[in-house]
Amino acid sequence: MTSVGSPPYTVSLLSDFGLADEFVSVCKGVILSLAPAARLLDITHDIAPHDVRSGALTLVRSVQYLPAGVVLAVVDPGVGTDRRLVAAVTDDQVLVGPDNGLLAPAAAMLGGARQVVALTGAGYELPGPGVTFAGRDILAPAVGQLCAGAPAESLGELVDPATLVPGLVSLPQPDGEGLSGEVWWIDRFGNCQLNIGPDELRALGAEPGRAVQVQIGDQARMARWVNTYAAAKPSELVIVVDSYGLASLALDRRSAADELGVRAGSGVVVTAGER
Amino acid sequence: MTSVGSPPYTVSLLSDFGLADEFVSVCKGVILSLAPAARLLDITHDIAPHDVRSGALTLVRSVQYLPAGVVLAVVDPGVGTDRRLVAAVTDDQVLVGPDNGLLAPAAAMLGGARQVVALTGAGYELPGPGVTFAGRDILAPAVGQLCAGAPAESLGELVDPATLVPGLVSLPQPDGEGLSGEVWWIDRFGNCQLNIGPDELRALGAEPGRAVQVQIGDQARMARWVNTYAAAKPSELVIVVDSYGLASLALDRRSAADELGVRAGSGVVVTAGER
Amino acid sequence: MTSVGSPPYTVSLLSDFGLADEFVSVCKGVILSLAPAARLLDITHDIAPHDVRSGALTLVRSVQYLPAGVVLAVVDPGVGTDRRLVAAVTDDQVLVGPDNGLLAPAAAMLGGARQVVALTGAGYELPGPGVTFAGRDILAPAVGQLCAGAPAESLGELVDPATLVPGLVSLPQPDGEGLSGEVWWIDRFGNCQLNIGPDELRALGAEPGRAVQVQIGDQARMARWVNTYAAAKPSELVIVVDSYGLASLALDRRSAADELGVRAGSGVVVTAGER
Repeated sequence: MTSVGSPPYTVSLLSDFGLADEFVSVCKGVILSLAPAARLLDITHDIAPHDVRSGALTLVRSVQYLPAGVVLAVVDPGVGTDRRLVAAVTDDQVLVGPDNGLLAPAAAMLGGARQVVALTGAGYELPGPGVTFAGRDILAPAVGQLCAGAPAESLGELVDPATLVPGLVSLPQPDGEGLSGEVWWIDRFGNCQLNIGPDELRALGAEPGRAVQVQIGDQARMARWVNTYAAAKPSELVIVVDSYGLASLALDRRSAADELGVRAGSGVVVTAGER
Repeated sequence: MTSVGSPPYTVSLLSDFGLADEFVSVCKGVILSLAPAARLLDITHDIAPHDVRSGALTLVRSVQYLPAGVVLAVVDPGVGTDRRLVAAVTDDQVLVGPDNGLLAPAAAMLGGARQVVALTGAGYELPGPGVTFAGRDILAPAVGQLCAGAPAESLGELVDPATLVPGLVSLPQPDGEGLSGEVWWIDRFGNCQLNIGPDELRALGAEPGRAVQVQIGDQARMARWVNTYAAAKPSELVIVVDSYGLASLALDRRSAADELGVRAGSGVVVTAGER
Repeated sequence: MTSVGSPPYTVSLLSDFGLADEFVSVCKGVILSLAPAARLLDITHDIAPHDVRSGALTLVRSVQYLPAGVVLAVVDPGVGTDRRLVAAVTDDQVLVGPDNGLLAPAAAMLGGARQVVALTGAGYELPGPGVTFAGRDILAPAVGQLCAGAPAESLGELVDPATLVPGLVSLPQPDGEGLSGEVWWIDRFGNCQLNIGPDELRALGAEPGRAVQVQIGDQARMARWVNTYAAAKPSELVIVVDSYGLASLALDRRSAADELGVRAGSGVVVTAGER
């Protein structure tokens, strides 16, 4: 029934480890030492330190495009507390990481976890000389075991999939005649993805080709709803339905985030500006 | 006749996507889902956003050292306009990307494109929920098709190779007794590569071991032409013929770019300082 | 007798090349062109330019977790001088790079080099158009030869392993009732690893659960010795024995390095604060 392929799998990796330290390589080294034929694919390691929400959103945006296999995700501000480490088995991926809201939204997008195993250990953990580095000492060995053919249930105790800690992913709320949402993501080009989709814009009375009013803190701006980034006139703030299907504030070849002074998490109220 | 090897190929990737977002991984995931045996090699993803010229120069510097196969290059400020996406077949590589000057210099360095296909689609494109993300939705699937064995001509319409958009790569011009050139590249160590080679320096009357006069904006500096970076005395500005065969302004173990206040694209006039 | 596995090997790479330029990809391309089946694993390429000591320490922290094979390490401020390039054969890894202190500490950690070859060439070097780029023109071809099955001794002249240049890795010194050490490493999370271990702390009279006095320049701070990062109270400076077994100054979810104003190499005097 599983469609995660067969071992040794592709292992897709996401973390807040950065690339300047050796953390990522050490986790990969542990995996490859156990499963030399595993194939590794970096999602990103530049999640801001401890930013579980940003990691969860990045995973949701990418997971449907990754080869079936295993995802190792580590953003773990609770290291050393009693938060669980888990392997959540979905139709396409086994999601491995801390159970702190990082994995649940991706699991949901993949149709839900049919099996969740708490990684309570079964002899695969690496002994460390000091505090446990969960990525290196528990999670990477668990992934290595999976890639070497071990079934997920051999890695610890089965737990109720309903007990996975949900992600803190906010949904927009009605606000007078508008909708109060937030910026979910600022990409490298300065585009500001909102947690608001085109159907919600239409429900406000907005239409492609017309302007939408966007309130950000003290600023009230008009943004024309266009179909491509290139349709923006010089200096014109626009809204496009981005390649993930969400409304995004953009400028042509410049950073809307810089001009607006917003960042991930900033609140935005959207109202149909013209009818 | 082709020497690009045989599928599944090595795919070398260059873009302005950065590594903080998941863009690169999503393109790789699409390729690997279509061609699980493809081997991936990152050239760089830190080209400045929309800087086609820098991307083209980086590709020219690296392409002769890459394993034969496919190059996927994406620096695409014209996304959403009518710029073409192409696959340009050369002796060693199939170069895949937007036809905006990014690919032509590398194609020329590889002996020219013998076949160019406009990627007008043939059922391989991914449907997206909003604006097209060309890297993910068109280019990566095309690369995946190539790696799975599809011939380039099956991916769209053959077009005249002479219509490839040329790169905006500047050449030096005579300027009085000197040569007016520009800084093509500042590397991580602050060395400033010029678009001027040793033969051109010699034609000005310059010689190894002697000083060359370098005018940068208001500054007139003398730079001794030496054979290695280590030959520079402390604080001495030197010119070396760098590992790509071009004249480069350098300081020993410090950044010449920082000291001179130059960046990629800065104009430089070089004159033989001593005869 | 060798346990470095058999060709084509995993090649683990460390350098100060950064990821913005194409340097890393060019070295990888040269390796893969010679040994298409080699597997590549990046340790990091973000060592500060010319920082041999930081490169050596990063290698020491990571090397025991890497798959057996070849390590290519390049931090080479002496490029163009008469420093040697070497391949140092240990039980688990062949360490390839400049002999400037970068490799010796890792070789020692792996049980010592049983054979050292000076890479004086044997026809495998790439001709370059200007100054030699040692990574691309000598070291990568040598690694490619190793991965294609050439024995290390075929790459140059055997030299006495005792002549490997030792690393400049400082050890702590007694200082009155305390111990004078230094910060070896600041990780992405701002934790400050000292060159002092738990046995040395105990020898000072310090005990887990009690405070240690830490003198950094003009600042005298108390730091409680705790067992996990999460045990730190808000704003409380703590010492933990980190996942490498060394004492590390930390704050809960914030950067101790930023708060203390220290960086790698800063001096620290540690004294038992409470008995």
